[in-house]
Amino acid sequence: MPKLILNKISTRAPKELSKEKIKKEISKLQDQLAELQNLLFASASHSLLVILQGMDAAGKDGAISNVFESVNPMGCRVISFKRPTELEMKHDFLWRIHQVVPEKGMMHVFNRSHYEDVIIQRVHKWVDEPTIKKRFHQINEFERLLSESNTVVLKFYLHISKEEQIERLNERLHDPSKMWKHNENDLKERDFWPQYMKAYEDAFANCSEIIPWNIVPADQNWYKEYLILKKVVEALQALKLKYPGLKKEG
Amino acid sequence: MPKLILNKISTRAPKELSKEKIKKEISKLQDQLAELQNLLFASASHSLLVILQGMDAAGKDGAISNVFESVNPMGCRVISFKRPTELEMKHDFLWRIHQVVPEKGMMHVFNRSHYEDVIIQRVHKWVDEPTIKKRFHQINEFERLLSESNTVVLKFYLHISKEEQIERLNERLHDPSKMWKHNENDLKERDFWPQYMKAYEDAFANCSEIIPWNIVPADQNWYKEYLILKKVVEALQALKLKYPGLKKEG
Repeated sequence: MPKLILNKISTRAPKELSKEKIKKEISKLQDQLAELQNLLFASASHSLLVILQGMDAAGKDGAISNVFESVNPMGCRVISFKRPTELEMKHDFLWRIHQVVPEKGMMHVFNRSHYEDVIIQRVHKWVDEPTIKKRFHQINEFERLLSESNTVVLKFYLHISKEEQIERLNERLHDPSKMWKHNENDLKERDFWPQYMKAYEDAFANCSEIIPWNIVPADQNWYKEYLILKKVVEALQALKLKYPGLKKEG
Repeated sequence: MPKLILNKISTRAPKELSKEKIKKEISKLQDQLAELQNLLFASASHSLLVILQGMDAAGKDGAISNVFESVNPMGCRVISFKRPTELEMKHDFLWRIHQVVPEKGMMHVFNRSHYEDVIIQRVHKWVDEPTIKKRFHQINEFERLLSESNTVVLKFYLHISKEEQIERLNERLHDPSKMWKHNENDLKERDFWPQYMKAYEDAFANCSEIIPWNIVPADQNWYKEYLILKKVVEALQALKLKYPGLKKEG
C-alpha cells in the first residue's frame, strides 16, 4: 500500500452530506446488523473481529456503544487492551491478543489492539526499530492466520484532528459525566502528535497487505459511526450466511 | 530442506556405541540441565519449548520423565495435547497452542503439538489438502514469532520401527503397570503406518525452515534420551545466560 499522509485526509464528513439522512441510514444499518449477527451466531461457521484504533478521545468507546447497541451481547464481546500485565510482558506481544480472538459464531471488538505494540511503544522508543519491523511481519502473518480460519477482520482508524482532540479533552475536565475519563497523561501524549501520526502511517503502509485499514473521519460522531456500521454490515452480508435449519440427529 | 525418507533412517543407536558409557553421559547431562534450568529461570530473559512427536508407543512419556527428571518442576511444565475440545475447534488450530507457550524463564514440553493438525488430521482426511498447505505456512510463521520473541524451540521426532511398536503395544496388554495405556485405536492406527510416515516426511520438508526437526532413533530408550538431553543442554548453553545478581532498587 502506498504510504498515505494522515494530515492530507479530512477528519470531517463531506459538506454536502445531510446529518439527518445519515442518522436514518444508521438506524436502518443497526437493524440489519442485529439480524446479521443473529445469523452469524446461528450458523457458527465464521467469526468477526473489529479492531478500533485512534488517538485519545478519538471516540472509540462511543463508536462501540453506538455501532453495536443493537446486537445481542450473547454473541458480541468487547475487549479493551490496557497496559500489558507482568505475565503478558513475559510472552510475545500477540500472546494476549490471540487468546481473545472470536470463536466461530462470535463477534469481538478490540478497543485498542496489537497495533499499540507498533504505535505507542515505537513513539516512546520502548522497543527498537528492528523489533518494530519484525512485528509488522508478525502482525501480517497473525492476521493471515485469522482470516484463513474464517475470521473476518475489519480494522478502523478513527481519524480526528488535533483541534477536535483538545476540545474533547477539555470537555472531560468540565463535564461531570466525562470526568472519569480524564487522564493527566493524555495531555502529555499530545506533544507526541507528529510521532504518533508517523507511526500510524507506517503501520498502515506495512500492515494492509492481508487486511486493509479503513481510515474513518471521526470529528463528527454520526459520520464515524455510519462508516463503521456500513462496513461491518457489508462484510457480514458478503458471507451470504444462511440459517442452518434443524440439526440432524447424530 | 530436501525430503528425507524415514525408512532409510535407522531407528537404533550405532552398534559401536556402549550403553554403559552413554548412561554415564546421561547422568552428567541431567546435572547440567538442572543447573541450566535454574539459570533460565533466574535470568528470565528467554524460554524453552520442547516439542515431542512420534507414533503411538514411540516413548514420548518416557522421554519426558527421564530427560526432565532432574529439573525443578517450578520452572518446567508439560502440556499433553489431546483431541481438541469443542471450543478449541471453534478457533484456528494454533489458538490452544499459543496459550500455553512458555513465558520468559520457563521451560515447557509439548507432548504432541500443533503438528497433529498436519499429521493425524491429514492421514484421516479430516481437512483438505489446500488447508494442510496453509497450515505449514502458518506453523512456520508461528514458530518464527516464538523464536523472535526469545523462545528457543526444539522439535524432536521419536523414530521407532513398526516392529518395535507392536512389541510395545503388546506389552501394554500384558504388563499390569502399562495396561492403562492400552487403547484399541492404536492397533487400528497401525494400518495407516505408511500414510503417517508420508505425512511426517512432508511436515519435516515443509516445516524445518525456521526451526529444524531432529529425528531421534527411538527403539532404545537410553539412546533416545541421551540425544534429546544433549540437544537441550547444548541449546541452553548456547544462550550463555548469567545469573542477574542483586536486583537494583526501583
